Amino acid sequence: MNETVESPRLPQLEHLGDATQHAARIHAMVGYAPLFEQFSLAEIRLLGHFMQTYRAQAGQEIIREGEAGDFMMLMVEGRVEVFKQDRWNTPRLIAVVEDGKTLGEMSMIDGEPRFATCVAVEPSLIAVLSRDALALIILEQPMLGAKILMQLAVMLSQRLRQTSMRLVEFVDKQRELSDQVPGPSFV
Amino acid sequence: MNETVESPRLPQLEHLGDATQHAARIHAMVGYAPLFEQFSLAEIRLLGHFMQTYRAQAGQEIIREGEAGDFMMLMVEGRVEVFKQDRWNTPRLIAVVEDGKTLGEMSMIDGEPRFATCVAVEPSLIAVLSRDALALIILEQPMLGAKILMQLAVMLSQRLRQTSMRLVEFVDKQRELSDQVPGPSFV
Repeated sequence: MNETVESPRLPQLEHLGDATQHAARIHAMVGYAPLFEQFSLAEIRLLGHFMQTYRAQAGQEIIREGEAGDFMMLMVEGRVEVFKQDRWNTPRLIAVVEDGKTLGEMSMIDGEPRFATCVAVEPSLIAVLSRDALALIILEQPMLGAKILMQLAVMLSQRLRQTSMRLVEFVDKQRELSDQVPGPSFV
Repeated sequence: MNETVESPRLPQLEHLGDATQHAARIHAMVGYAPLFEQFSLAEIRLLGHFMQTYRAQAGQEIIREGEAGDFMMLMVEGRVEVFKQDRWNTPRLIAVVEDGKTLGEMSMIDGEPRFATCVAVEPSLIAVLSRDALALIILEQPMLGAKILMQLAVMLSQRLRQTSMRLVEFVDKQRELSDQVPGPSFV
């Protein structure tokens, strides 16, 4: 895939070309990069043709909550803080993401606005996979496409489990509190 | 796919054979069945070869929280209640699932134990897709496999958004409560 096919997804960042040049580095992260757990170097090299890389400086905003976005990002190097606005519109830090981890999968997959804002806290190298590129992989390399989709589904499933577990704990806690406090029927 | 390849996943239920016989019925649910939003009748017929159908009676338990399971289920007909144990091991109703909806995707995808228990509340017709069958679809019908995986990823992504939003609301509420109540520094 070349520039004429893929327009820059992060125009505010320095564009470094496709990700094939970083294939060995990405493959070295396989042990702790959930997306690439099952990938060989050859597969990552192949995938690299479909991904674009960018350099973010410390303090640069990469994606913004509520905005449109049709791509996900792999942190190849650096660190990113993730903020979500609370109901008083105050940005709250909800996660810190380091190399090997991915960001923005939900919007890439479901086309909905960004759930959170990501800001680089140190100089970072980011590899971008767009929905168009994923569609092209499925057409041109169906087995590789299925492998990425399966791995994305595994990641989403595990995050859904964790989030659901935390939600159940909150609901339990609230139920416990409302059991302790005399309700309206006692007033 | 025939019986020699696919062992029954729900031995306690009446097994009705593969899902091809119900293809027209499943296709009629396309408008409200998230998994099949983009599927043609031909694709559902093809997929039907890889799915097994079962009949559950009212009151029958279909899957149990904490148990192993490597398949997901499509509700073709009927209604199922979903229970999750709270921290006092009391089962709490967390959802009611009707025809067109799916159950058990997380375990099919990530291989972890069942998150919740499902009980039929009326006679139900259930189509099962196992992880082995999905792997076979990817091998034999890669485009169909990619389409199912993409749709599964979309469903998981949307549920993760909804669950994360609810969790953020709970955290906000708790923060608000702890702001109202004088903390240790006021004592």
